[in-house]
This record gives sequence, structure tokens and C-alpha cells, in this order.
Amino acid sequence: MVLADAGCEVRLWGRDEAVAAQVAGERRNEKYLPGVELPAMTATTDAAEALAGAQLVVVAVPSQVARATLRGMRDLVEPDAVVVSLMKGVELSTDERMSQVIAEALDVPAGRVAVVSGPNLALEIAARQPTATVVACTDPGTARFVAEACGNPYFRPYTNADVVGVELCGAVKNVIALAVGMAQGRGFGSNTTATVITRGLVEITRLGLALGADAGTFSGLAGMGDLVATCMSPLSRNHTLGRHVGEGMSLEEALAATGTTAEGAKSCRSVLDLAGKHGVDMPITRGVVSVLYDGMPVEEMARGLLSRPQKAEGVWT
Amino acid sequence: MVLADAGCEVRLWGRDEAVAAQVAGERRNEKYLPGVELPAMTATTDAAEALAGAQLVVVAVPSQVARATLRGMRDLVEPDAVVVSLMKGVELSTDERMSQVIAEALDVPAGRVAVVSGPNLALEIAARQPTATVVACTDPGTARFVAEACGNPYFRPYTNADVVGVELCGAVKNVIALAVGMAQGRGFGSNTTATVITRGLVEITRLGLALGADAGTFSGLAGMGDLVATCMSPLSRNHTLGRHVGEGMSLEEALAATGTTAEGAKSCRSVLDLAGKHGVDMPITRGVVSVLYDGMPVEEMARGLLSRPQKAEGVWT
Repeated sequence: MVLADAGCEVRLWGRDEAVAAQVAGERRNEKYLPGVELPAMTATTDAAEALAGAQLVVVAVPSQVARATLRGMRDLVEPDAVVVSLMKGVELSTDERMSQVIAEALDVPAGRVAVVSGPNLALEIAARQPTATVVACTDPGTARFVAEACGNPYFRPYTNADVVGVELCGAVKNVIALAVGMAQGRGFGSNTTATVITRGLVEITRLGLALGADAGTFSGLAGMGDLVATCMSPLSRNHTLGRHVGEGMSLEEALAATGTTAEGAKSCRSVLDLAGKHGVDMPITRGVVSVLYDGMPVEEMARGLLSRPQKAEGVWT
Repeated sequence: MVLADAGCEVRLWGRDEAVAAQVAGERRNEKYLPGVELPAMTATTDAAEALAGAQLVVVAVPSQVARATLRGMRDLVEPDAVVVSLMKGVELSTDERMSQVIAEALDVPAGRVAVVSGPNLALEIAARQPTATVVACTDPGTARFVAEACGNPYFRPYTNADVVGVELCGAVKNVIALAVGMAQGRGFGSNTTATVITRGLVEITRLGLALGADAGTFSGLAGMGDLVATCMSPLSRNHTLGRHVGEGMSLEEALAATGTTAEGAKSCRSVLDLAGKHGVDMPITRGVVSVLYDGMPVEEMARGLLSRPQKAEGVWT
């Protein structure tokens, strides 16, 4: 929709014949975007048809099946096509970021794989509400190509060369969204929320610097922007799960109540492991793990966070 | 309250005899903090009594009367006392920051004037909800002294040497809160809000760097933290004023509806002037001025912001 509204000729690929027919024929997708009038595009379940001649290939499939899905399409992608990832998280079996999975599975160099991330809740984009985003690629020319292709009157892309930082934001923000949900479920308001978001970003930044990312990415649209949007939205699963836990539910009860998997509940332990390997302190992430898996009351997590030795702001090490 | 809960002996000074008597005698302040049980402190309308022997003097009077109020107390402040500003904004007659006004009016060196700012909405602090803050002073020892004095189980201070940055955040964030309010009044949701907050902080940072501040301050508690808390709170006057304008009211109608002065409506033009003098581009601030004073529709402001030439993220110049 964003690309078509930007003037691109769009061919959508999907598994579901009925959805494809509805998108192409009636410009609607009632299952995922009820009530939204889509721009003109074709849609098909035939990957070869979708990919033939495509200069830009945008990938949005579940993270854990991305490698297998893309491998089956490797020979269908044009040799000089640019590939864009909209996926978050890491591949659990390899700990690789999604842009790495794409590069390997499609045998495309990193300079032709871009990542798009920002305060981009799908239903609000579908309502064509103004927003901005980050297009990250190690090759600045590729980032500009993608930005020019997708910029439209409600969607404003900024380019960035820090792919590691942008993908780390997407993988880790759900842990902070959980912590914010816990605080709000416990009855705390704007001060606590803003403090957890700000200091949560500080600890993500610390991890990012250890992994070679740029600090500025974390205070940008893929970091702070996405985190603020996630923490404001009642639709965020991680935020909702955290709120249930803050209200007193166990992790099992909260998972049952939300009825979905919340990425942050799984990834918080991997993030803490990664931080440990790099000697990075992540007190909020540690608190989330303690509350979810060691039965620590949210009250005690808050007390622990506030009683640490005083220190200076802006210290990343 | 924060200092008394941190174990300090507190003497409150105020103009109103009845309020002082209620605070000291009944540990309540029904006018400003209804329902809150205050810790033990004395309270007086006699400045000499309040200031005699005080090591720490915390100043929270309206910005525009600060100089005159403090001048009358100059001889009452202990020679080695540390003075803390809780005030936001600049003195309109001189364009000076509040810490500068304090240093001049009390004849105290800058190294003994500290500034405290962060996501610190008063009513939530009074409810003892966990939050963090920044204590800024050019002298790190003074900042640590203030931080140690005020840290308590619900209030966690971080020190910072960037007084200019912290005070600039406090003065400019209301303009961004106005822009967020306008977007929300127009019906836009989390994506637009997060985008305006993130890119708003970018343009404040740009101005800050031109004035000698550190970029890190703006992504910290006094910058992002305070801005997120302000934009989440239904109590913020600037946010509410912006929302009325976004819903279609003129500035005059919105001011009448809120019944109060909203700092940002006055300061946005000064901020834009200051940015112009330093050759700094502030497109969101310019949009707020155009909507409030030139009758530009919010719709057109959004369109203008999104249609600018594309650029890279993290570019401060």
C-alpha cells in the first residue's frame, strides 16, 4: 500500500488464494485490514509471477520461517534486485539478524539488503496517518533508492547506514515494552512510563555500542520512535502482557489471557545472555526476566532499580 | 516532600500563611496536593527563618518573578549554600536561563547553582510513583551533593554537567508538546505522536548543539523523558491547547477553552527566532508558529513536514 501510494507498480505475493483475489480484484483485505481501501496492485500466489522483473523485493514473513521461505525463491529474484526486510527479531536457531538471513537465503550481498523500521503500527499506516521511518543499508545508495521508492504524502523515510542498530532496536524494544506494561499494570503513570522508556533505551544503546552500532540510531525513529509508538498503543501484545503481569498475573496466566505469543517474553532471556557475553549491564531487562521467570514482584523490581548506586547520565559503559 | 522523604530536614517557605500552617501542622496541602499525606517539615512565610543555616536552597517560583523574589532574599542565603532551580523557561526581559537568573539575583557562582528536570509530573511524584530525574551543574561535586540529598525510594537522580542542554529541554519541550497535541486533536494516533516526539527532539538537539549543549542530554531524562511524560499526560496545558487547535479551534478559542496560559504558545516564536539567529532549521517549531499565528491548517502543516526533501537520520547540521 505504501509503495503503491508512492507511485510504484506493486505485485503482492501471498499464500492465500482468496486474499490475493480480494486484494487484486476488490482492493480490500478484510481479514487483516478491515475497512481499508487499498490502492491498485496485482496479487498472486505464484512467486515467480510476483518476482519477475521486480527491482525491489519487500519481505514480510514470520521471522522463524524466513530462511526456508526465501530459499525456495532464490532463483526467482532478479540478479540486481534490492531486498527490503520488514521483519523484527532474530532467527532463534542461528542468532542471526533478519538482514543476514535474507542475504544468505537469497545469496544477495549486504549492500543490496535494506531494513525498514520506525513508529509504523500497521493499522495507522493503513489509515494513511502521517508517520516517518528509517531505511537502513550499509550501502547509502541502496538506502536512498528504497527511500525514494516508498516516500509518499503520509510516509516519510530517513536513510541510515546503521543496519545493526536498527535491527537491534526492533529485537529488543519488546522487552522494554513489557517493562512499561508491568509498571502501568501496577498503577504507575506517565513519570514511570517515561523513565522506563528513557532508561530502557539507554541500556539498549549500551548493548548496541558493544555490538558496533551507532548511539544516534537508538534516539531515532527505529529506536525511541518505535518504542514510544509501541508503548502508547493498546494493540501491542508485549505491552498488554506486561500490564497483566503488573496487575498480578503469573506469566502463564498472562499468556493465556492475551491468547498470543509475546515476542519479548521469549527474547528477554536471550538479550540478557547477549549482554552478559559483552559485559553490558541491563538492569531493566534483568528485572523483566526476574519478574517473568523467578516470580519477583513488580514492586520489588521497581525498588531494586531505584536503589542502585547513583550515577551520571549519558555514561554508556 | 522528595527531600524530606530522602531524610533531609526541610523548611518550606511560601507566601500564604494558611497553606504554611496546614503543611506544618497537618501535613497536608489541600489546595495543590489534595489527598496527599506529606512527610514532616516546617513551613513559614518568613524567608529569614527558612533560609538560616540552609545548605540547600530549592527555588520554585514563577519564572518571570524569580529575579525580583530572589533579590529580596540575597542577604539571607548562607554564603556557601547550594541553590537548586526547579523552574522552566527563560526570563523574557533578558532571554536568560533560570540558573543564570538565580546566579545573578543571589550573587552565587554557577558552580553552586544546580538544575533539576525530568519526567516529574508533580501529582505523580506526590503519589510517590517511581521516577528518575537529572541533576545538572557545571560543578560535578555540586551535582552529586544535590543528587545524594534528594535520592529516595521513589525518586532516582542522575547527575549531568550539561546545564545549558537541560534548561533548553525544559524551555522548548512545550512547543513539541503543542505539535503532538495538534496531531492528536486532528485524529492521528501513536505513529504520528511518536514521529513528532522523535523528530521534535532532533530539532531541539540541533539547536542545543549550536548553543554548546551535549546531544546526549536530549535523549536523556530531561529531554526525551520529560517530553514523553508531558505528551502522555492529559494534565499538560500545552498538550491540551494543541489538541483544541487540532480539533479546529483558533488560538484565541483554544486559550479561552483551556482557561490558562500555555507556555509553548508564547515561547514558540522566541525559539524560532533563536534558531534563525544560529542558522538552525526547526521545521516542526515553524509549523507550530504557522498554525497558531498565521492560520495554517494542521493538515497543511503535516503535508508540509512530510513533503520536504528526503534526508539521512542523525544529521545534526
